[in-house]
Amino acid sequence: MMTGMNMPAAQPRLIVFDVFGTVVDWHGSIVKEVSERFPSVDANGLALAWRAGYQPAMQGVRSGARGWVRLDVLHREILDGLLPRFGLGGLSEAERADLNRVWHRLDPWPDSVAGLTRLRSRFTIAPLSNGNLALLTAMAKRAGLPWDCVLSTEVFQAYKPDPRTYLGAVEAFGLQPGEVLMAAAHQDDLDAARSHGLMTAYVERPWEFGRQRPKDVTPSPDNPWHARDIGHLADQLLGT
Amino acid sequence: MMTGMNMPAAQPRLIVFDVFGTVVDWHGSIVKEVSERFPSVDANGLALAWRAGYQPAMQGVRSGARGWVRLDVLHREILDGLLPRFGLGGLSEAERADLNRVWHRLDPWPDSVAGLTRLRSRFTIAPLSNGNLALLTAMAKRAGLPWDCVLSTEVFQAYKPDPRTYLGAVEAFGLQPGEVLMAAAHQDDLDAARSHGLMTAYVERPWEFGRQRPKDVTPSPDNPWHARDIGHLADQLLGT
Repeated sequence: MMTGMNMPAAQPRLIVFDVFGTVVDWHGSIVKEVSERFPSVDANGLALAWRAGYQPAMQGVRSGARGWVRLDVLHREILDGLLPRFGLGGLSEAERADLNRVWHRLDPWPDSVAGLTRLRSRFTIAPLSNGNLALLTAMAKRAGLPWDCVLSTEVFQAYKPDPRTYLGAVEAFGLQPGEVLMAAAHQDDLDAARSHGLMTAYVERPWEFGRQRPKDVTPSPDNPWHARDIGHLADQLLGT
Repeated sequence: MMTGMNMPAAQPRLIVFDVFGTVVDWHGSIVKEVSERFPSVDANGLALAWRAGYQPAMQGVRSGARGWVRLDVLHREILDGLLPRFGLGGLSEAERADLNRVWHRLDPWPDSVAGLTRLRSRFTIAPLSNGNLALLTAMAKRAGLPWDCVLSTEVFQAYKPDPRTYLGAVEAFGLQPGEVLMAAAHQDDLDAARSHGLMTAYVERPWEFGRQRPKDVTPSPDNPWHARDIGHLADQLLGT
């Protein structure tokens, strides 16, 4: 495995980040907000079920079964399907719309803002998330995420791991794939990015699904970088 | 004319800015850089001719005569056509590429960063420029423009004043046109935005084309806001 001690010589010209789970704690943020609003609801179950609907919902767009639909809309469709099961079938339209915007209000992991701020001092940094532009913008504004540019797969009208998303980011910046580093807490996202020539960095987020469901964060030898968190990634890339 | 003394009650949820001429001083920046690099060249003439090629170049895309081409490429095509006339026909590929990136290095007007920073404290702010994403991102990073999100017409694969650009920004943020304010130093840009239901603010930039060619900055009664500069716009919108 290549690590900080044995890193590739190449330095990226652009670093793009997965966001949900990598930069922000979707599970903890949703559990917290749902628990506060609806104390009797199984907030952990709702958070996990909402997120579990994410890949199947995007699959309809990926397969071409439906045209482009932004993630805010998919999140809402999944939520509407789940509410009765969690005793919330009686929520009004306004309450549903507001609850759906919890994805705009996700809290960053404790190291994210400081780590990104350090990386930004040398590199151009942007999200490359399936979250839509408005979602990522509201999230960044609230959480203080210091992106140089908010890049969403909405720009390419395709969801990761569609090649148009990774290569679209590369091409928009007039770069070669090998000049772009993708950082994510998900090996499948990194595998896809790497298959199109991008460099990859894995970020450990063992509690992405909550303390009750630890995630396997075993390093993969395929990633040139492997970091405990974004601060540790900055240590490696800045050589500090 | 409605001014700060007589402003509309509606407050925008999103403010989008034209960039070239409105937020940054393209003429002064290009003249400065060209003068420094090539002291014998008519820098004022080159800057004006380069910018004069801008509308005709975009017209090929607008008319459908050619597919989507980002502005970096159009700027380069115009530049290549102009260089011999300015005694620079012998520039190498690397020199041309670097000179073309002067558009990534434009300096803001003196009030821009402070004015945008104040506006950002209450509103979501973004460029809505024909400049491409990489250009606007590099410019913002260098100049410290505090955008919440870098919105380029590249996202909509169309150049202003195509309706898809104004309405694309509105729709991406899940808003109604009347909730978005377009700010620009160009009445034609504002006229187009207004025709699609956006609110408009004119920003005076009398020296956009240099001190030798003052621009008419007469207020138009069609714009709910008219400001001497971005600081003055912030005064009006923040009520200070």
